[in-house]
Amino acid sequence: MEFKPGRVFLLRVPEGEDLLEFVNRFAERKKIETAIVKGIGSLRNPVVGYYSEEIKAYKRIELFGTFELLTLLGNISIKDGQPFAHLHATLGNANGDVFGGHLITGEVFVAELYIQELLGEALIRKDRGNNLHLWDEERV
Amino acid sequence: MEFKPGRVFLLRVPEGEDLLEFVNRFAERKKIETAIVKGIGSLRNPVVGYYSEEIKAYKRIELFGTFELLTLLGNISIKDGQPFAHLHATLGNANGDVFGGHLITGEVFVAELYIQELLGEALIRKDRGNNLHLWDEERV
Amino acid sequence: MEFKPGRVFLLRVPEGEDLLEFVNRFAERKKIETAIVKGIGSLRNPVVGYYSEEIKAYKRIELFGTFELLTLLGNISIKDGQPFAHLHATLGNANGDVFGGHLITGEVFVAELYIQELLGEALIRKDRGNNLHLWDEERV
Repeated sequence: MEFKPGRVFLLRVPEGEDLLEFVNRFAERKKIETAIVKGIGSLRNPVVGYYSEEIKAYKRIELFGTFELLTLLGNISIKDGQPFAHLHATLGNANGDVFGGHLITGEVFVAELYIQELLGEALIRKDRGNNLHLWDEERV
Repeated sequence: MEFKPGRVFLLRVPEGEDLLEFVNRFAERKKIETAIVKGIGSLRNPVVGYYSEEIKAYKRIELFGTFELLTLLGNISIKDGQPFAHLHATLGNANGDVFGGHLITGEVFVAELYIQELLGEALIRKDRGNNLHLWDEERV
Repeated sequence: MEFKPGRVFLLRVPEGEDLLEFVNRFAERKKIETAIVKGIGSLRNPVVGYYSEEIKAYKRIELFGTFELLTLLGNISIKDGQPFAHLHATLGNANGDVFGGHLITGEVFVAELYIQELLGEALIRKDRGNNLHLWDEERV
């Protein structure tokens, strides 16, 4: 679907916040329905998910300690009538090794966040019967 | 080079598509000459490349199974008179380990794609004699 | 903070440049105060940092050889009255293994850079007494 650019936010998330909860709350408070989200920073004890096609569910991957948040990338759209952030993260440890997945939780040490709102028809996540809520496919 | 923002697309790629082929076809159908491309999702059996300066060619890295697509990042510009997507991918497995490279192939399980068209002079990839097609350098 | 979109640049960094120095010089020459920076490419002998909360300093992680630059992601804001780039990088080797951190140095083999200027109030990095210069937090 095609969108028009809306508001642009660049901000630092307060230390101690849960990153995903913050993005969802920010979207709700600012009445953001659709957006692109990006960020860098540092997260404590992040938990990420890997979606298994076999078991049709997310496997939790728990990481311990403080990790560089190398990329936070994702979007905001509508799920169950509310703005909903879908974010993936890559995380680096003290040796430079990188881990990542679908962001579940992570306490912010530092997070510099860029949110580009998009204006247009609502993009809606629908239950696909496999524990995934996805937009309609777009064919070209 | 400097550009003006053009159309903005946010969409889900149909399951089963090859991600790179889809982006190239999307660009062709929508007559996109220049763009920034980003995305997240999940890919089956991705193949990525590592360009070796020694052998002046890409080495293929084949990954088996379904991987979280943690970042898809790249651009569309003109090569041989056609829109051409140059995309890099990072991919996470069930343990949260991350792999990546220059995207060669990968079957979409889920892909949420953001494409920001840019308007301006054509940005053209030229053969540099080392199996790389690159834009002119910009000095400042 | 909320911003308006400014100029948009998409360009190839000249081979041999230090990537971080180039971004800082580009910002200075183009009088960019605030921006989002993204890129892909290939870097020689990159050095990245991991910020340790324990020692309140960056640990240096030196990588040898040429790595695919899978993601360059970050921003430009003001530090000590000058535009200052804060960039994180993920880097892939010939086996597809991925490393990353806060970008310190790295010689460009290829770098395709996208810079989106943002217009608004200056976003200023302030010394937080832990070897980090951070923007004020934004609460919602």
